[in-house]
Amino acid sequence: MKVTGEDLWTEKLAEFYQPMDRITAGPGEDCVHISEIVRREMVVSVDAHYEGTHFTMDIVDLRDIGHRSLALALSDLAAVGATPLTYMVNLEVPEYLTLDNTLEIYKGFEKLNNEYCISPSGGNLVRGPRCGLTIVVIGEVERGKGLLRSKAQEGDLLVVTGDLGRSLAGYEILTQEDLHASLAPDIRNPLIQKFRQPWPRIKDMLYILRLAKVNGAIDITDGLGKDLMRMARMSDVEIVIEEEKLPIHPALAEFSRVTHRDLSSLVLASGEELEVAFTMPPEEFEKIRDLRVPVTVIGEVRTGFAPGVLLRRKGGEEIPIGDLGYDHFEKA
Amino acid sequence: MKVTGEDLWTEKLAEFYQPMDRITAGPGEDCVHISEIVRREMVVSVDAHYEGTHFTMDIVDLRDIGHRSLALALSDLAAVGATPLTYMVNLEVPEYLTLDNTLEIYKGFEKLNNEYCISPSGGNLVRGPRCGLTIVVIGEVERGKGLLRSKAQEGDLLVVTGDLGRSLAGYEILTQEDLHASLAPDIRNPLIQKFRQPWPRIKDMLYILRLAKVNGAIDITDGLGKDLMRMARMSDVEIVIEEEKLPIHPALAEFSRVTHRDLSSLVLASGEELEVAFTMPPEEFEKIRDLRVPVTVIGEVRTGFAPGVLLRRKGGEEIPIGDLGYDHFEKA
Repeated sequence: MKVTGEDLWTEKLAEFYQPMDRITAGPGEDCVHISEIVRREMVVSVDAHYEGTHFTMDIVDLRDIGHRSLALALSDLAAVGATPLTYMVNLEVPEYLTLDNTLEIYKGFEKLNNEYCISPSGGNLVRGPRCGLTIVVIGEVERGKGLLRSKAQEGDLLVVTGDLGRSLAGYEILTQEDLHASLAPDIRNPLIQKFRQPWPRIKDMLYILRLAKVNGAIDITDGLGKDLMRMARMSDVEIVIEEEKLPIHPALAEFSRVTHRDLSSLVLASGEELEVAFTMPPEEFEKIRDLRVPVTVIGEVRTGFAPGVLLRRKGGEEIPIGDLGYDHFEKA
Repeated sequence: MKVTGEDLWTEKLAEFYQPMDRITAGPGEDCVHISEIVRREMVVSVDAHYEGTHFTMDIVDLRDIGHRSLALALSDLAAVGATPLTYMVNLEVPEYLTLDNTLEIYKGFEKLNNEYCISPSGGNLVRGPRCGLTIVVIGEVERGKGLLRSKAQEGDLLVVTGDLGRSLAGYEILTQEDLHASLAPDIRNPLIQKFRQPWPRIKDMLYILRLAKVNGAIDITDGLGKDLMRMARMSDVEIVIEEEKLPIHPALAEFSRVTHRDLSSLVLASGEELEVAFTMPPEEFEKIRDLRVPVTVIGEVRTGFAPGVLLRRKGGEEIPIGDLGYDHFEKA
């Protein structure tokens, strides 16, 4: 019997699945089945990554699309301090994408698959006008230990992994030819790289959590300003960012100089960074200060009259920041 | 602080969440957190329901869209014999839908929420050119007891819940004015109803599984022919359907008579039925024969030279059926 159409696609995509003990049934079945979880909690998140909304075909290749979609979804697991178990892919396929194109997208998952020993254990195919992936990630945390946005405490330090702002700069370089031409390769490449191949901080967060206690946490996908505002609101606290402490990559500093763009605005608005912002008491930070994990204290948590985020300038002046970052639903 | 844009939408939609013990963190957080699962397996499935592909705005209302999306996703849990725990909604919102429209879609979930004591525990919002829901359903089964498509056994009876074919007839009535006008309300209403408000067989399957052993199972979402072909392939068996035994609603019989359409073709091709086809040894069927649950034996499982599905006509002639049903990826 010849397998055709959707079933052929499904069978080809199922070849990306790598069996694992914890998964007792996967691709081809109605659900993924995951074995019992003792002294653990399961965490599940869903994230969408769409042509037109999150990327265009001229600035990323098919493997980038796969990588970015999965990296963005996995970043939610990094934010809760979870170990990934598996994921499922809902793929919207426009008429202009062939099965081979789709397999390329799946090949874009492989770097992350290898890093975390995961693979796609199911999903769904749907025809649509544009390319889009909605990825369901499934992971686990020690019982009661999953990090939450709502647990930032007064007196905590505000810490962030890696550096911020490169993703937005990379996007601008990829979409503006003049800008691309005006920057040397050693400046533009680290910026473009962060946009096309972002990396979730899963292992860094697991490493940090083995050594120290973290209170609140959120991953930076809509911009530091907007995401910290969410944490402030859910934790009912005021968060102060010290402008001077923001971690800046040298290439971003150069980008800011050449383009006359305000560095802090870039950092606050840049989404899809996949860094994690978290809060912890100062004595807990001492336990991770000297690790190889790239972390920077960028501010503190305090109690305010109302939840909010402030930027403290060099001179000590504190400016309330709006929801800087990208919002597709503004004015709706 | 005024909440606007996506965060306002998210907060409004989070009001549909009903806290439950098993869920330790839900809406607003990065993931849904589900407490430990002892002697159970967790089952997760994802299903997409898109304007243009699965429905158009002129044949369903906003609440129908919510209901159908969730019913279709829950049907995968019915197919594995699972108890639903919760679900997450990835909602694609075109510019022409307001927040109030979106709340109507969510109100469409309420009948199913109430029936199964579930509610949306998270999700994601994305702007797009058309309305679409991608729903992640999370449920649980007794350890090792989740039903699979791949476990149909030679000698099993083929059983189906409810009746088949009404969904396709309902769709045709809603999209063809002449047809709508040519049928009396008492004929067209049960057909339209099945299309607009299908119901997953979760409780029936749980009831059956308390009393009897089921081998293979699949839900009918792409047509009996196509879905049984999947089961045949995954179980490496031949499935024979007896045409005379197909369960037909009186309204569908009348529809077939008036439109001169072949009844079996309607039944084999009709998708989104949300009935479950399952296989079990004859002695197991005896245990459920007299229940209130609507089940019909429609055929049997045997070993063939290659996996396949046959339709046995009145006179005993057996016809191999193709992948009758709807396939968006055919010819791709």
